[in-house]
Order: sequence, then C-alpha cells, then structure tokens
Amino acid sequence: MVKCSIHLVFVSAVIMSNPRAEIFSQGEEVITGQVADTNAAWLSEQLVNMGFNIARHTAVGDKLPDLEELLKEISRRADICICTGGLGPTLDDLTAEAVANAFKRPLLLDSIALTQIESYFFNRQKKMADINRKQAFFPEGSVRINNAWGTAPGFAVLQNRCWFVFLPGVPTEMRNMFRQHISKQLQQRFVLQAEQLFVIKSIGMGESDLQQKINDFALPENVQLSFRATAEEVQTKLLFPANAENTACVSQLIDLIGDAVFTCDKPAKPAVSFIQLIDQLMTEKKFTLAVQETATQGLISAKCIGYDWLTHASYQPFEQAENTDYIKIAADIAHKLKHKNKTDLVLVQLYQGNKTQFLNKKQSIVIYNVLLTPEGIFQNSHILAGPVKRKQNQAALRALDLLRRFLQNKCH
Amino acid sequence: MVKCSIHLVFVSAVIMSNPRAEIFSQGEEVITGQVADTNAAWLSEQLVNMGFNIARHTAVGDKLPDLEELLKEISRRADICICTGGLGPTLDDLTAEAVANAFKRPLLLDSIALTQIESYFFNRQKKMADINRKQAFFPEGSVRINNAWGTAPGFAVLQNRCWFVFLPGVPTEMRNMFRQHISKQLQQRFVLQAEQLFVIKSIGMGESDLQQKINDFALPENVQLSFRATAEEVQTKLLFPANAENTACVSQLIDLIGDAVFTCDKPAKPAVSFIQLIDQLMTEKKFTLAVQETATQGLISAKCIGYDWLTHASYQPFEQAENTDYIKIAADIAHKLKHKNKTDLVLVQLYQGNKTQFLNKKQSIVIYNVLLTPEGIFQNSHILAGPVKRKQNQAALRALDLLRRFLQNKCH
Repeated sequence: MVKCSIHLVFVSAVIMSNPRAEIFSQGEEVITGQVADTNAAWLSEQLVNMGFNIARHTAVGDKLPDLEELLKEISRRADICICTGGLGPTLDDLTAEAVANAFKRPLLLDSIALTQIESYFFNRQKKMADINRKQAFFPEGSVRINNAWGTAPGFAVLQNRCWFVFLPGVPTEMRNMFRQHISKQLQQRFVLQAEQLFVIKSIGMGESDLQQKINDFALPENVQLSFRATAEEVQTKLLFPANAENTACVSQLIDLIGDAVFTCDKPAKPAVSFIQLIDQLMTEKKFTLAVQETATQGLISAKCIGYDWLTHASYQPFEQAENTDYIKIAADIAHKLKHKNKTDLVLVQLYQGNKTQFLNKKQSIVIYNVLLTPEGIFQNSHILAGPVKRKQNQAALRALDLLRRFLQNKCH
Repeated sequence: MVKCSIHLVFVSAVIMSNPRAEIFSQGEEVITGQVADTNAAWLSEQLVNMGFNIARHTAVGDKLPDLEELLKEISRRADICICTGGLGPTLDDLTAEAVANAFKRPLLLDSIALTQIESYFFNRQKKMADINRKQAFFPEGSVRINNAWGTAPGFAVLQNRCWFVFLPGVPTEMRNMFRQHISKQLQQRFVLQAEQLFVIKSIGMGESDLQQKINDFALPENVQLSFRATAEEVQTKLLFPANAENTACVSQLIDLIGDAVFTCDKPAKPAVSFIQLIDQLMTEKKFTLAVQETATQGLISAKCIGYDWLTHASYQPFEQAENTDYIKIAADIAHKLKHKNKTDLVLVQLYQGNKTQFLNKKQSIVIYNVLLTPEGIFQNSHILAGPVKRKQNQAALRALDLLRRFLQNKCH
C-alpha cells in the first residue's frame, strides 16, 4: 500500500537548477491526429513561465512496448517529466502498467485512492463500476496525486534522474491538478529562476495591426517580444530576464496600443480573463444587465455564466428590411427592454447580412451593438468574416467589449 | 548540385507494407507551448487514413544537438518520418544543417531552388534578402520538394531505414505541399491498406458505464476496441483490419448500448456531429423550436447556431421555492410559450440548486428538461456536478438530447 504523502517525498528530493523538462502525452487520439496536443502546449507554457528548460514533447499511442521504451528513455535524460493520459478505467489506459513494467515496480492498491473514487460516484448517486478499481493501483514507490475533479488520481515517482508526474488527459482535471498540487512542489524541488513575463491583453485589433502599431517602439535589448492570438483575445507578450528591474516599457506599450487593451497580466499575479474583468467591474459598480441577441444566438449570455448581474437574455431572428437604420432600431429595442426589465444597462445586438452571408465562411456580415446606460447610448459596429462559429464568437466578444469599454470609461 | 527529381527517387525505393511512421516538429513556439502542434495532428490524420501506423510524435526546439540526436534515433526505428519547421531563412532555422551534421551529408546548393526563391520575391516586386539564399541549400543526396505557396522549398532524403520528408512549418504551405507532392509518392512507395474505423457516438453514459455494459460482448479477435470522451459525446471505436468483411458486430453493439447512441460514423462516410444530426432530423420533419433556459444561460440556443428551426430562446434566473414540482412548472411554461410563439416544439429547462451548489465544483444541481410536442410532453432529469462551465455544457447537452430522443422516436 502506498502511504507517504506527496509533500514529503517531493521535498526530500535533490535540489537542482536549470532542470531539463519533457512532456509526454499518451493516447491514440493524439497520435492518430484526432486531437491536437493542447495539454502539451499548456503544460509547457506553465513550466517555461516557472523557469524550466523544455527539451522535448513526445506523444505515443496505447501500445505497451512503445510506452515502456519511452519511459526508460526519458528516465535517463530528463530531470522532470509531466505525463498526461492513460489513467482512465478502460483497457486502453495503460500508463500505470507501463510504469510498473518499465521500472520493475509492481502495482499496489492505494486504499485512500479507492475511497476517493468510490466517493466520486457516491456523490453523483451512481454505483462505481468494477473496472474503476484499477484506477486505485499505483506502481510501488509512487505518491498519489489527488483528483477532486474526476475519477482518475494521478501519481508521481522518481526513477533514475527523472521525477515523473502522471496526470489524467482530461484537460480540466489535468490543469486543476497541476495548479493545485504540482506547481508548488516543483517550486520546492527545483531552484528556478523564472523570467518575468508581462502579457498585454487586447481585443479588437489583429496581430499584424498590433505589430504595425508598435513597430517603431524601441524595446530594451534584453526583452523578448512575441504575439499570440487566441479565440478570445490578442496577447502582446514581453519576456524580461529574471533579474531585470526596469520594466517601464510595459506601460509605455500599453499606452501606445490604447483602448483595445483590457488588462495586463504581471509576473506572479493571477491572470485575469476578459469575462472575469467584466465581472469585477460590474460587481464593483453594482450594475445589472439585460441582453438581446441576434447573430450570437445566446452566446453573449452563455459567456456570462455564473454571474448574477445578467438578469435577462433573449434571442430571436432579426427580420431585416432595406435601408434599415440598425443603430436606431437597436436603441429603440434597448429602451423598451429597460422599461420592461428595469436593469441599469441594456445591450442589444443586431446584424446586417442574409443567411448565406452568415453561414458562408468567405462572406461577411456587419454587426451593430448598442449599449443603453444611465449616461446615454454607446455603440459600435464591426465587419465579421469566417466560419459561422467564428462569426458568432467574435460578435459576442465585440458586444461584450462595448460593455467593457463603458465600464472602463473608454467609450468615446 | 542536387539533380534527380523527387518522382524518380521515390519510385525506385523499396516497397514495404505496414510501415511505421513518425512525426517530428521543430520550433521553439511548439516546445514552449505558445502554439499547440496542429501540424502533427493534421499530418497524423492524413497518414492514418492512408494506412500508416503512427508510432510517435516528437517536438524539439531549435538547439542543434537536440535536432541531430532525434534525427539519428528516428532513422533507426521508423520507415517514414514527416518533419515540419526549421526551413526558414533565419538563424534559428536549423533543419538542413542538423540533417547535414547527423547524417554526414554536406549542404549543397540547388540552383533550381535558388531560382524559385528569387522568382517568389520578384513576382511580389520585392528584393530577395541575402539570408534567403540559405533556403536553397540541401544535404547531399536530398531531393527538392517544390513550394508554390511560400519561400521555403522542402526536401526528402533516405537515411538508414527511414525516408525523411522535410516540410515548412507554416500550415498552409505544409498542407498544400503534402497534398500536391507527398501523398501520391507515399502511395507509390508503400503498400498501404487502410483499416476500417466505426465510431459509435453516444450521449448520457460515461466511459466506464459503457465499458461495463459491453463487457461480456464477444468481439471478433481482429477488432480493436477503444473509447474516447469529448466534451460533447462518448465514442466507442471499433477498428477492423482493411480486409475485414463481416462488420455485423457493430450493429449488435449499437443495440446493446441502446438509446444513448445517436449515430455511428462509418469508414469513408462523412462524420456526423450531435448537433448536425439534430439539424438533419428537425429539417426533415419541418419542426420549429422555442427554448427557455436557466442553468445553461443561452448555451442551448448558442449550440444551434446557423439553424433556422430555432425561432425563440430566452434566459432568466429561476426563482426556486421549497417543494417545487419542477416538471409541472416547466410544463406550464412550455404551454405558455407554445401559445405565444406558435412553434411545433418547446423545450424548457429548470434546475434545483442554489447559487453555491451551481458555482461550486464539488456540489451538484439537478436539471429538469421538459419537451412539449404534438405527441405530448416528454421529460428527463439529471444530476450534474463539476465546475460551472461543465455543468452548463452538460445541461445543454442533456436538454438537446431529450429533443434528439424525441426526434429519433426513443422517448419512452
């Protein structure tokens, strides 16, 4: 039976600096290209930000000999390896067995893990299937990593020079377990000098527009600049050396980019997402909101899940006529909704474009957003192109961005 | 100077069956997690569909010794390796140099490649920078792969048992070069027999429940069974050998799993998603739908984006009282909405649980779905746990699944 706690084992390990890290993903769906390996990307980003040197990502399928061979290889060349996948209850989940075979560590029952798995099912008023018992067996000498987000506990084991951490492949479980259990232990186990990363987050400007805008800005030589566009935002990333003291160019850049910036994540501060920021501002100002959607069909509302300040939302198809004054119509709807729902703010979205223009990725639509506030009406409009889901998502972000700009006093 | 054409060299190579393929990605942005390795996923999918056996994906950064070591390893264990990235003009583009060092093949100028690169700039009325000359040098014995979509030509080389194909990392260039130059050559070089994949897609049963249910089912020995849970569905996958003629066990398994199955994707047929299936059925039956949401807050509606049959959707927080008869209240709301909106179907969702239970990932809520149809009222209810976004997504799927079951005559 595995008894010692993860905390003790981690701390007792050898301390080293400049550690070599690898990421190892297990799963047929990665190796056969059914999903891109976003776990590897996410874990690498965390480790790089902590100061690790990432040497390799490797993905293999669910063939036991391939898994064993790879584990042996990595145990000889890496200081830390984070592995995801293969911890489920089914026959193709072979990680623990591969570790047992590769490192001659027989599988032993961890009774606490078994109780946790049983509770997981009990809390959902389900009976645990027999095959889930398998998830409570770990290779001898391993340390359990609790999983409060699913059925599969992880485990960690030191083999040769490498500390292996095994986490489930389900992204939410893996990320939560890494944040809650692993990152602190890594800080204790290794001497890490993290570079300082600032992430300026903006919405409403493309990567190349951003690059164009800051082209002539003279960055200090020791600062690395990069850009990254996600579905939600565009990030301008500035990486300073661990010992850099003068980071004044960050706020200069924020000023240069302008109102499109909604926040800047700083080293060792929790990151703030676009919707979290809106929630902070709405809560602070004690505003309530009603929304009427067209092109987004519920997505503006869905993005505000869990926040009380959204009190009404509705969707119905918008009948378009020629020569429509979209802003005027939207403003009229907003006034009616305010009268009916008594919210502080009303956000109304309309769009111009027929069904073909909406569905065809090569065609575009124009969206019009109107925000009715105690200070009057604010508005924006945007041309959106791409596949229908991209149009939907962008339309929702642009509508919420009007709200964000109002809340940050950036509506002109 | 490299002279022979890629066509000749490929065809003259040894023909073999059941080839072992690897994917190798080069680039700091992959290894540090700034981008997920979508090239590897795309290439794997192409190769699997052609009948290759993918053994590994590996990604490394731009350190020459790492690249050389990996190339040597792969040359000893794979029959074919597709490599992306590192063919650009800048200092951190080291692929050709790594191949030259690893395999002792000096870099030689390919004058045709140089002309192609010069023309690329000339056609865009730009002057070629000196650093771009580097892209016309290939390791001795390589074969050029033309790139009509960018500046970086690729190259291919046979080393030990492995045929290496080097392509640029820019996805559009890589994909076009693969489609136009590589896939046909692979068909000629290897004897390929694509396996037959059936994917039984279900909703409403976990992976372990599914496995339990089909535990005693005797699958033919040559069939590989696996499971995959996505945020939208659970897949039971059956992989038959290329020459298998009797696939009757697929429909037997579908019957065994029961009403949770919404579709089965078959080899060489386009895959159908959950929402696409609902759209097909709604369109076929010419039904219209109105939705009232609570826990999902717009997500049911948002998932139906682009489909005309959804004509109304609304969200408002649901005030819960003690001893509420949720099904009765939902049915009352449904009747009122039907009267107001005149749709054929009305879907109403309520839930039981306070705000803490909804937001806390360790607590659960109960959702109640009611579907009003011309044939009467149908209903289901489910306990949902996990983070709020998971509850929201599961609640939307369970509501739409009630609709799906009605449309497939599976409401009992």
